[in-house]
Amino acid sequence: MVGKIELNKRQQKILEIVKGNGPITGEHIAEQLSLTRATLRPDLAILTMSGFLDARPRVGYFYTGKSSTQLLTEKLKKLSVRDFQAVPVIVKEQSTVYDAIVTIFLEDVGTLFVVDESGCLSGVLSRKDLLRASIGQQDLNSLPVNIIMTRMPNITVCKKDDLILDVAKNLLEKQIDSVPVVKKIEKGYEVTGRITKTMITRAFVSLTNDDH
Amino acid sequence: MVGKIELNKRQQKILEIVKGNGPITGEHIAEQLSLTRATLRPDLAILTMSGFLDARPRVGYFYTGKSSTQLLTEKLKKLSVRDFQAVPVIVKEQSTVYDAIVTIFLEDVGTLFVVDESGCLSGVLSRKDLLRASIGQQDLNSLPVNIIMTRMPNITVCKKDDLILDVAKNLLEKQIDSVPVVKKIEKGYEVTGRITKTMITRAFVSLTNDDH
Repeated sequence: MVGKIELNKRQQKILEIVKGNGPITGEHIAEQLSLTRATLRPDLAILTMSGFLDARPRVGYFYTGKSSTQLLTEKLKKLSVRDFQAVPVIVKEQSTVYDAIVTIFLEDVGTLFVVDESGCLSGVLSRKDLLRASIGQQDLNSLPVNIIMTRMPNITVCKKDDLILDVAKNLLEKQIDSVPVVKKIEKGYEVTGRITKTMITRAFVSLTNDDH
Repeated sequence: MVGKIELNKRQQKILEIVKGNGPITGEHIAEQLSLTRATLRPDLAILTMSGFLDARPRVGYFYTGKSSTQLLTEKLKKLSVRDFQAVPVIVKEQSTVYDAIVTIFLEDVGTLFVVDESGCLSGVLSRKDLLRASIGQQDLNSLPVNIIMTRMPNITVCKKDDLILDVAKNLLEKQIDSVPVVKKIEKGYEVTGRITKTMITRAFVSLTNDDH
């Protein structure tokens, strides 16, 4: 249990009673334990204040079922894309693979986003896509990126209000390194940011900081 | 405060007294508040069980100063490299860059570790190193990886008992994607695993699971 709360035997018994019979009044819990209401008051206070139980007037105590994991999840659910996103690096569909590789090094990123003439997201280029192309037989200076990129609609995107936790799950599930942060516009998606495993790593480390 | 604990005014006063005067006995706290020891008992119980205060027999109460962040940090300090490491993918110093690129695709990894004749870690190859070489003028089939790899001692390593949190900080600080998990042997380091930002992402997501 987060918060070093170790419940004593009586408190654990109370939890069991409320789990099985809640909502239940303090008087009824006391009855079941053959104790007075006054004797139980400190225990009920501890169980309520530490989040194990909740109490409603004229209803009684009920089990909230919060484990330390749930409490931690609540903390993780405050971390959103908005707080961790980085600036996206974007190339046009007509750019060559050679230009894309140069951009990867100049901007020091692992993934490029490709936009069409109207500025809408049309593709994603990973280092692996570029490495694969570079050992092929084609001339990188005349090969346009739209031949080798992953295309819409096969691109996983996120919005700035999404949870970092959900993006992290998506990165793992889809086995990708990066997702664009997008905004819906008339003809598709505008790319406004990026989340990579570096930002997830930053979010992980930030959990030990006091700033949220 | 993790655990939904909201302290009431009296509990906050007790905390202040203990912060300023601890270690201090329950009797002395009661005196300062002009209350009886019995009246304070539930408050002291809550403050102790929720980790704000600690108590030692014949010494009294003292302030532990634990914030929710510290409690969370305690949880993060249980996650070690051992629990999240993946199998390392290793090539020999004499391998060609072409072979290394093929290995990257076959094994579906982002980083390769290079070992010398005695099996000791001698280098690291990232996708960026390989991409840089592949657009160079050299013949990838005759270029050995030890020409382009990052060499010892310029390699960040970790041990299996290290904290995931510390490895995550190192990945961010050194701006690298992966560190080898190593074991000291006679002539250097044996590579026994790898930690990448993917594993950090997995550790981040695992915080919402109940299995630790």
